[in-house]
Amino acid sequence: MRILTSALLFLFVTIGSGQTAPGSKLNIVQNISELNHALKSVVPGDTIQMKNGIWKDSEIVIKANGTAELPIVITAQEKGKVFLEGQSNLKIGGDYLIIDGLYFRNGHTPSGSVIQFKVDNDHIANNSTLTNCVIEDYTQLRRETKDHWVEFWGRNNTMKNCYLAGKSNSGPTLRVYLKGNENINTHHNITNNYFGPRPRKGGPHAETMQIGSSETSMTPAYVNVSNNLFYRCNGEVEIISSKSNFNSFSHNVFFESEGSLVLRHGNYATIDGNIFIGNDNSEFIGGIRVINTGHWITNNYFYKLKGSEFRSPLAVMNGIPKSPLNRYNQVTDVVAAYNTFVDTKSPWHFSVGSNTDKSDVLPATEIRSARPERVILANNLIYGNREETTPIVAYDTVDGVSFKNNILSYENTGEIQNTGIETREFELKKVSEHLIVPHQKFTDVYEGFDFENITKDLFGKPRKDNDQVGAILTPVSNDTKLFNEKNYGPSWFKSEKTATPERIVQVSNAEEFQKKLANAASGDILELAYGIYEIDRSLVVDKDLTIRSKNKDKKAKLKFSTNQDNPAFRLKPRSGLRIENLEIEGNTGNNAFQTQDKEMSAAFNLWISGSKIKKFDQLLKVSKGAFADTISIENSNFKNLRVGLSLAEETDDKGEYNAEFVFVKNSTFEQIETEVLNYYRGGYDESTIGGSLVFSGNTVKDSGNSKDSEILLRTRGIVNLELANNTFINNKVKFIAILWGAKGQEPVNNTVEHSGEIRIKENLKQKLMY
Amino acid sequence: MRILTSALLFLFVTIGSGQTAPGSKLNIVQNISELNHALKSVVPGDTIQMKNGIWKDSEIVIKANGTAELPIVITAQEKGKVFLEGQSNLKIGGDYLIIDGLYFRNGHTPSGSVIQFKVDNDHIANNSTLTNCVIEDYTQLRRETKDHWVEFWGRNNTMKNCYLAGKSNSGPTLRVYLKGNENINTHHNITNNYFGPRPRKGGPHAETMQIGSSETSMTPAYVNVSNNLFYRCNGEVEIISSKSNFNSFSHNVFFESEGSLVLRHGNYATIDGNIFIGNDNSEFIGGIRVINTGHWITNNYFYKLKGSEFRSPLAVMNGIPKSPLNRYNQVTDVVAAYNTFVDTKSPWHFSVGSNTDKSDVLPATEIRSARPERVILANNLIYGNREETTPIVAYDTVDGVSFKNNILSYENTGEIQNTGIETREFELKKVSEHLIVPHQKFTDVYEGFDFENITKDLFGKPRKDNDQVGAILTPVSNDTKLFNEKNYGPSWFKSEKTATPERIVQVSNAEEFQKKLANAASGDILELAYGIYEIDRSLVVDKDLTIRSKNKDKKAKLKFSTNQDNPAFRLKPRSGLRIENLEIEGNTGNNAFQTQDKEMSAAFNLWISGSKIKKFDQLLKVSKGAFADTISIENSNFKNLRVGLSLAEETDDKGEYNAEFVFVKNSTFEQIETEVLNYYRGGYDESTIGGSLVFSGNTVKDSGNSKDSEILLRTRGIVNLELANNTFINNKVKFIAILWGAKGQEPVNNTVEHSGEIRIKENLKQKLMY
Repeated sequence: MRILTSALLFLFVTIGSGQTAPGSKLNIVQNISELNHALKSVVPGDTIQMKNGIWKDSEIVIKANGTAELPIVITAQEKGKVFLEGQSNLKIGGDYLIIDGLYFRNGHTPSGSVIQFKVDNDHIANNSTLTNCVIEDYTQLRRETKDHWVEFWGRNNTMKNCYLAGKSNSGPTLRVYLKGNENINTHHNITNNYFGPRPRKGGPHAETMQIGSSETSMTPAYVNVSNNLFYRCNGEVEIISSKSNFNSFSHNVFFESEGSLVLRHGNYATIDGNIFIGNDNSEFIGGIRVINTGHWITNNYFYKLKGSEFRSPLAVMNGIPKSPLNRYNQVTDVVAAYNTFVDTKSPWHFSVGSNTDKSDVLPATEIRSARPERVILANNLIYGNREETTPIVAYDTVDGVSFKNNILSYENTGEIQNTGIETREFELKKVSEHLIVPHQKFTDVYEGFDFENITKDLFGKPRKDNDQVGAILTPVSNDTKLFNEKNYGPSWFKSEKTATPERIVQVSNAEEFQKKLANAASGDILELAYGIYEIDRSLVVDKDLTIRSKNKDKKAKLKFSTNQDNPAFRLKPRSGLRIENLEIEGNTGNNAFQTQDKEMSAAFNLWISGSKIKKFDQLLKVSKGAFADTISIENSNFKNLRVGLSLAEETDDKGEYNAEFVFVKNSTFEQIETEVLNYYRGGYDESTIGGSLVFSGNTVKDSGNSKDSEILLRTRGIVNLELANNTFINNKVKFIAILWGAKGQEPVNNTVEHSGEIRIKENLKQKLMY
Repeated sequence: MRILTSALLFLFVTIGSGQTAPGSKLNIVQNISELNHALKSVVPGDTIQMKNGIWKDSEIVIKANGTAELPIVITAQEKGKVFLEGQSNLKIGGDYLIIDGLYFRNGHTPSGSVIQFKVDNDHIANNSTLTNCVIEDYTQLRRETKDHWVEFWGRNNTMKNCYLAGKSNSGPTLRVYLKGNENINTHHNITNNYFGPRPRKGGPHAETMQIGSSETSMTPAYVNVSNNLFYRCNGEVEIISSKSNFNSFSHNVFFESEGSLVLRHGNYATIDGNIFIGNDNSEFIGGIRVINTGHWITNNYFYKLKGSEFRSPLAVMNGIPKSPLNRYNQVTDVVAAYNTFVDTKSPWHFSVGSNTDKSDVLPATEIRSARPERVILANNLIYGNREETTPIVAYDTVDGVSFKNNILSYENTGEIQNTGIETREFELKKVSEHLIVPHQKFTDVYEGFDFENITKDLFGKPRKDNDQVGAILTPVSNDTKLFNEKNYGPSWFKSEKTATPERIVQVSNAEEFQKKLANAASGDILELAYGIYEIDRSLVVDKDLTIRSKNKDKKAKLKFSTNQDNPAFRLKPRSGLRIENLEIEGNTGNNAFQTQDKEMSAAFNLWISGSKIKKFDQLLKVSKGAFADTISIENSNFKNLRVGLSLAEETDDKGEYNAEFVFVKNSTFEQIETEVLNYYRGGYDESTIGGSLVFSGNTVKDSGNSKDSEILLRTRGIVNLELANNTFINNKVKFIAILWGAKGQEPVNNTVEHSGEIRIKENLKQKLMY
């Protein structure tokens, strides 16, 4: 096939190929310079095929103009077999371009975006399409380095059947820009994409999609986001942040995603026929959060959501009177009608964000006291969740909301009673996974202003002549599925990795241990025979590994004689280290666990159980930018440390922090010289879970005795905290902890002897970020 | 014709009448109860005729529904012969209603509006029309009582060929409401109306038209304001205040109106083909003031405008970064193209309102430091005005504006030089009144983004194939007129009053004087023979009157022995009193001139020349709410007064004040016990001229000697001030005056002996109103 491999030979193909129009040419290129050369002579109808293989450090710039009938196609030779790696990216400018089948992985963009619908201000893409592409784990080396994976500019552009997952750095995965008249009235289409997992970031700016910004929130955007799957998009509190006008979100599935579809700025959004699926475990999976004016929220199905406040199934916020452009406008003229809430905890939260009681720590321009006005909730259905009794949670007076013909399956014992919310008998039927419908039909619907425009139900059935309350017209056929995962992303791409079988590796001495650890595969278990392992260098962990004693009653003992720059365990991005039933001893000058110093591109996890750790400087030291999704300590003993867990390197007060979930249970801390825990989150930010500490069943004694010690457990700014059933003895500190009252933090059943005070401070003065 | 006068007889008219459809009925009614009765049985296609005559205190409520083909018509029996007087008003609710030919006068509305397109929230008017109606001088009794003359609600309503003039109280003449989903996407049409004189108000809230408010500024309004005449609409700085999105202003004429078409809130307005006409005298006649995003300003013709800053021909403002909802958003993405500026003073002002130098007196949320961004000025033409050399005035760096293919008739010696503003030779031709066009054609036009949508010129000529710079495609035919006054307002109505001939009434004694004054007609001149006129009661003036000595060298002397509650002259609303060459003497306890205490519904004027006035408590005392358009004192002598001019009763600090223009020239003030002048304006307000004082060529001596006196001329908050060529001798005050430096006030050539200081204070701390 010399004809195909030689550079820039033009192959005039026949109609039968299905790829090019008659008379147009197919160019096959195998590197950037061939591609650029081909582009020089490209004409409408042409196709440029990129050869299969790895395209490393390839910055592709496409400037060309096709036509509606004869677009220009840039495609992978075989879809999914052209890999853009290293520092690659793609910018396109011009009319009617189609980008098809590319795969970005193993690297990160050297610019602000991976794929951008604009080359420069004079070359903006219009009427162009990105399809069947994948961007996977193509994340920056540092969390704080900001980029976007797809940037929309121009008008009438489309992204369809793409897969994007694994972004853990700052910046929305997909960003629509609306700055400049060339980039408004966009009518962009974002459809049938698979937005795969976006991990928790531990800081703001981790939306999966952001459409506009507060500065351009007055623009008519008309972005259509429909039929996409958002699968465990956990970056921050906003999965989608809509910040412009006239956007439409329809028939998307939000699957176990810790956040909400948020109407953050801009007005007159349509949210129709979407599906929000939670589970029994997470309290962070939300639904729709409403700010601003004129939105229509119809035919949506909410299932098993346990989120509250900002993450409620339906959160209607309070605004700031005469709000600054970038803060919170009042909610007015919003209609939420024909929605169904199944097994959700209190589905409707009103005046979310009301903070009039925080005027001592916030400026007047942050006080959300403007209640929703002219809001209509009509023809909604709430059922399931038998323990639930309060469909409404209100953080302020509910005087601007009209309730009409809403029906509830349980008795409403909440404060907000209204004839427009009526309890009825229900019989429920599980049709398929996540889909539960009532046997009953409630046909007495409220016909409000412009309600005649709500013509169909969730599944597209016409409401005319057969209208009823709720998102779904019943009966539904028995084979009805809520959604089909196959409809999302490129057909050639499988997002699920096959799990490798668990492998146990036996280890009997220090040398062998170091060697086998270095060669281990992710998921391996290293089982150490009883004995002493003397180690003089850091063990580097960059994958999922378990290290445990072969016999938990005869613990292997690791003795580390490294210096202060070299910890016992050095944790790299994506590492997940489990320490089980070990004894670990340092030389008092070194640290036990420490992250890589920089470029902690993704989260790490650390579990310690049944172990004894002593004689270290710090138990865990993280670098700035490092982020642990989970740190879990159970049934362990710590002694003779200068510092315990130190998770306080994010000191810029911009909402970033070093760990999301920290569990410390049933463990003992003795002779910890300064603090047992320093867990810090700074900056007035509401976009994250905000850190979570469970400290229970522990004993802390003879600690905090150094001169500088003031607090044993520092948790400033951490939102979620449980402090229960601990014993504190002989700790010479002023405070054991200072808890944040406004977040509901309070100590439970702790025993305190000769130790400091557990104080509760209601409000926290935080640095404003916006 | 008993059949017509008897109540509620239904007359089935034939097609030939042209008023009703076949089968529909004509009801003739002669009072409210007949009208209400008729409404009970009204059906689509019906007409209700209101009988000619005066309908006093008639509150008309129309609730009915016509159809597009068969509207319901409420009409005057003869257009313009049905007078709604006293406390009357009209509310309509329903579909396809037409209101035709009514005349509101001699009274004021008892509610918040004269004509309202809404009865209540359940009865809003849609698809309805107000036509051929007049509202004249139907103003509230007090300036501070707020109302609107026409209130738009609903959708698709029309006001055409109406005449509205003479509103002098608080509140825009016409107001479009956008609150609630029923009242957005309005597509209202306001066309061919004659907005007659709206007098200066001396305070804010005196727009001729306001579309929305800051609270509803996010709504899509789509109000169309086209082909209207705004004739001397001088209420305040905003003739039209557009506060919503997607409004269109086209082919309107703004004739000698002291204000601008202001894009105050909201975005994406179209301003096309409008005509702005000023004159040689006024510095307050403006053009277009731009705030916010995405406006297109095309094909407009600006003639002889002398306004600057807020009142510039084209004022592009600075915004407040992250502005509060009700203040100033940044200007972005605005296009001003194909406009023509003839004989205007520096037509383009950028960063208007920049006030970074006032941070000592204003909070950060009032500082307009955000400069215009992505603004394009292209294909504009500037000519005439040979003395002019600076087309641009900039109050901040001009770095966000692109100039493309603009052409200028004079050399630009200003600071802002740009290749996009080119000087060319011009020959000009006066085609008709106010219409001057160049002989040259400048055909090199800039073709910017979306410029292809600018398809026509000011007169509707297609630009295709014949495009050129400026609003007008040349040549134009010799009979071209800029506009025709006949196209505006009801055809039956003549707005111009025929002037009554001047009448001189001779007076020789006090009794005769009082009698003739009481019976005088507006415009009369009372000529007093030499002698002394002893008067013991107040002379009431409620019209335009001149009182003068028959022989100016032998002055008549009026001696007033009234008490302190009764001034020599009591001035009523609309009074205009000229005192010429008289001697007027009080008894030291009474006042010389004093307004009516309350209900000063309209402005008064006072001119004093060649006269001697002495022995009064106050020279002029006004009531709160009173407003003088002009007070002029020349060549007169004042002696032995406690207080001179007192114009300081508006102390609420809401931007109101008591007089617009105060001239005091070539006069002498002796032994004025406290202040010669107290002229006050309070509140941080930018919507008015702000008061204007000329104090020149005067001598003030032996005044301000009372203990409390501190300042001789108090002018706090007054914007325009000239203090020149005066002599101050032996006045025991600390200050002669404290001038406002930021407004350019400075004393010129005054002589000060044994008097206080003339101080300049740069910035003034004012009470925020918003």
